[in-house]
Amino acid sequence: MNRKVEQWDMFELSVKGPAEGNPFTDVTFSATFKQRERSIEVPGFYDGAGTYKVRFMPGEQGVWTYETSGNLSELKGLSGEFECVAPAEGNHGPVKVSDTYHFAYADGTPHDSVGTTCYVWTHQGDELEELTLRTLKKAPFNKMRMCVFPKHYLYNNNDPLSYPFEGSREEGWNFTRFNPEFFRHFEKRVDDLRNLGIEADIILFHPYDNGRWGFDKMGMEVNIRYLRYLIARLSAFRNIWWSMANEYDLMGNMSIDDWDVIIQTVAEYDPYDHLRSIHNCGPFYDHNHSLLTHVSVQNSNLRGILQWREQYNKPVVVDECAYEGNLGYVWGNVTEQEMTRRFWEGFLSGGYVGHGETYVHPDEILWWSKGGELHGQSPDRIAFMKEIMESVPREYREPVTFQPHWENSPCIGKEGEYYLVYFGIHRPAVKYLELTKDRKYKIEIINTWEMTVTPLEGIYDANSNVELPGKQYIALRIQKT
Amino acid sequence: MNRKVEQWDMFELSVKGPAEGNPFTDVTFSATFKQRERSIEVPGFYDGAGTYKVRFMPGEQGVWTYETSGNLSELKGLSGEFECVAPAEGNHGPVKVSDTYHFAYADGTPHDSVGTTCYVWTHQGDELEELTLRTLKKAPFNKMRMCVFPKHYLYNNNDPLSYPFEGSREEGWNFTRFNPEFFRHFEKRVDDLRNLGIEADIILFHPYDNGRWGFDKMGMEVNIRYLRYLIARLSAFRNIWWSMANEYDLMGNMSIDDWDVIIQTVAEYDPYDHLRSIHNCGPFYDHNHSLLTHVSVQNSNLRGILQWREQYNKPVVVDECAYEGNLGYVWGNVTEQEMTRRFWEGFLSGGYVGHGETYVHPDEILWWSKGGELHGQSPDRIAFMKEIMESVPREYREPVTFQPHWENSPCIGKEGEYYLVYFGIHRPAVKYLELTKDRKYKIEIINTWEMTVTPLEGIYDANSNVELPGKQYIALRIQKT
Repeated sequence: MNRKVEQWDMFELSVKGPAEGNPFTDVTFSATFKQRERSIEVPGFYDGAGTYKVRFMPGEQGVWTYETSGNLSELKGLSGEFECVAPAEGNHGPVKVSDTYHFAYADGTPHDSVGTTCYVWTHQGDELEELTLRTLKKAPFNKMRMCVFPKHYLYNNNDPLSYPFEGSREEGWNFTRFNPEFFRHFEKRVDDLRNLGIEADIILFHPYDNGRWGFDKMGMEVNIRYLRYLIARLSAFRNIWWSMANEYDLMGNMSIDDWDVIIQTVAEYDPYDHLRSIHNCGPFYDHNHSLLTHVSVQNSNLRGILQWREQYNKPVVVDECAYEGNLGYVWGNVTEQEMTRRFWEGFLSGGYVGHGETYVHPDEILWWSKGGELHGQSPDRIAFMKEIMESVPREYREPVTFQPHWENSPCIGKEGEYYLVYFGIHRPAVKYLELTKDRKYKIEIINTWEMTVTPLEGIYDANSNVELPGKQYIALRIQKT
Repeated sequence: MNRKVEQWDMFELSVKGPAEGNPFTDVTFSATFKQRERSIEVPGFYDGAGTYKVRFMPGEQGVWTYETSGNLSELKGLSGEFECVAPAEGNHGPVKVSDTYHFAYADGTPHDSVGTTCYVWTHQGDELEELTLRTLKKAPFNKMRMCVFPKHYLYNNNDPLSYPFEGSREEGWNFTRFNPEFFRHFEKRVDDLRNLGIEADIILFHPYDNGRWGFDKMGMEVNIRYLRYLIARLSAFRNIWWSMANEYDLMGNMSIDDWDVIIQTVAEYDPYDHLRSIHNCGPFYDHNHSLLTHVSVQNSNLRGILQWREQYNKPVVVDECAYEGNLGYVWGNVTEQEMTRRFWEGFLSGGYVGHGETYVHPDEILWWSKGGELHGQSPDRIAFMKEIMESVPREYREPVTFQPHWENSPCIGKEGEYYLVYFGIHRPAVKYLELTKDRKYKIEIINTWEMTVTPLEGIYDANSNVELPGKQYIALRIQKT
């Protein structure tokens, strides 16, 4: 047996077949992968020029066999095997929900989702796209929200280099024929992210078409064909998350029933059950939907996470809480301090927060949609926060009340044992502790903006008065000794 | 006729009578003031040492006659007259509700309520009290929230110089006998405020007794006697507002029915119908109560004003939105920028906002309760804001929507004519106007922190792109030309 594939890497079978007619609609092709009692049927796809492919992400080590099916004799009954070997360092498998409100990779490694957004970075040409990748390599982000379809919108006036369908804007699209080159490019970028350890949170639909191409109103038959094709191509990438839509509620052509069909389609055709979400502008989608794995929302109130955790009983990711920048819109002009503050507030409310950047740029290259370079000062602080969060033991990652007051400060930990509490814009010069009695505590002052951790000398009682810097953006870590 | 009294100033009649027994409970004394068909009965009070007084604030110019009543022959049937003359400059009369959501003095002059809080400044001795008055003389505040009863609380460990009742903490209070000297001192300070053009928002009850004196749990019979005595003494001051309580909901001894009796008592015995409110810690009192004249609340969400205006149809004053300072509590440690921001946000949401200051002080002299000096930087900015607000014509003082977006920026004005919009922590470097078409506009950039007003050159169309400073705390005034 020659072929070896790492666990959670991709096995790809490529077969030659007919190029005539419309292979996208006329030909069916799939394969069933087996290991002992395990059997998984995986959809294949037509990759153009008479090439048919099926991709598989093995979730278990050991020997796997496969056999193809299809409606053409030359594509069916093909069989073979490969060995799935241990994952290399850095390959932790796909991300799943863990402990109700959190995420972990398939190998159990916790995933602290620290996302960013470059909606259409894969449509900008290699030069800018590779700059984006170099930027990401130095950045703290482990998730990227990105659209399949191009965007026509404020600061997004350039057309993409290729399109998902045959045809053209001027002459119309042939929605029955995909453009494999478009998807190959997109996949290459997903693969680039995988190599950087970054999850691709793929936005399947979005409203920013604004009459230019019509990809936001193709009708449900085309929508579902597109989804099946995309899923067949992409689901074997371990770093895929599915976001049904960005700002679903702005897509006037789609009903709640349509979205339900889309969610069901994704759940049905993806053999690996990658994470599924749907993102709002205004009103949230009903995240109690059993096929949505987590809450992905837009909202500037990070303390809302406390409520949404209760309401939906799922991890809460505030993917858009505003962007660091200086545009003319409230969603795109918060300071670096405020962006950082929202991360701390969200994480210490038991959720996850997404970054974005929208500085006015002479060439209209805004990170938020095109990628490129980061100009802001929040990413370094987000990296610092991520490091702190990763140092918090899992059992202390749930919200607790630290000194109930008029407004509670965001805090995670465990009563009497561990508190990581954040004061945000408030700037105490002194803090009277009122902790569980008969215990001793050690305290560190974390300056989340200056990125310092300063242990306080001595051991503190439950009722100590602690002197603090009297600055904004301070957190305290208080641990029972 | 010798005696002349300014309109809305105080006429005081002082009569000698018995000092024996308990004149506070045994003697009734009042006077009826008449002018043509107008007749007002005004309660009198015992001021100690055999002196009985009745005070009257004439609301109309011209000759007034009076005749006393009472249950003692030497106090009843006394009569006389005085002439009420035009008010001097700076005397605008008492403040009333105006145009549903606003305030104006009796002479029609608008009152833009810009309050501050020094809860027990009148209990600190003359030296500090006079320092407070000198500070107020230079400050922008035209309302002072202040308690009758002393305060025993965090940073308030000193006892007052005198008490409202005979007796002592150690030996108990005689709740049937008031201490006139205490009230004379309190009145002197109310008078000092009147001379500075400052309204005294008098807090009748508060929960910060904490078992020291028991003034928060005297029982309703004593409460009502105290109210009647206070009203008889104070209501003829034109600069009085009545606040039933601070943080009424923290006074466990008082039921909602008790508060209702208190509101009714104040309304019934005050001949002048001074403004009446009741202030919360957590849940708001039901401000739909017909005898409450305005909404006085504690809340950090100034945008809530929009809702509370609708809900209660009264002026909304957020008397506590937090204090500039550096204490260990979220209510007492916001920055000077944030204090200022909350003022702008509140005023441009169609409400009024109160200031306060709580910086840690070596001698525990915090403005918020004891007065003294101001150390913060928000008062200058509040003065600047007040000046801007006073320049806004009354018809443009209502909230309007300026470019509906994800979150609306606070704005007052009138659609297509006038906008005063505030961007708060947001820092646009550019703003695309989307105003009523076919009109031309002139624009001023107001830097609310740096206190500058910069008119932009030229005239703008409804769809102009305006370059902005890209800083926080910017407001724009946009006026149709």
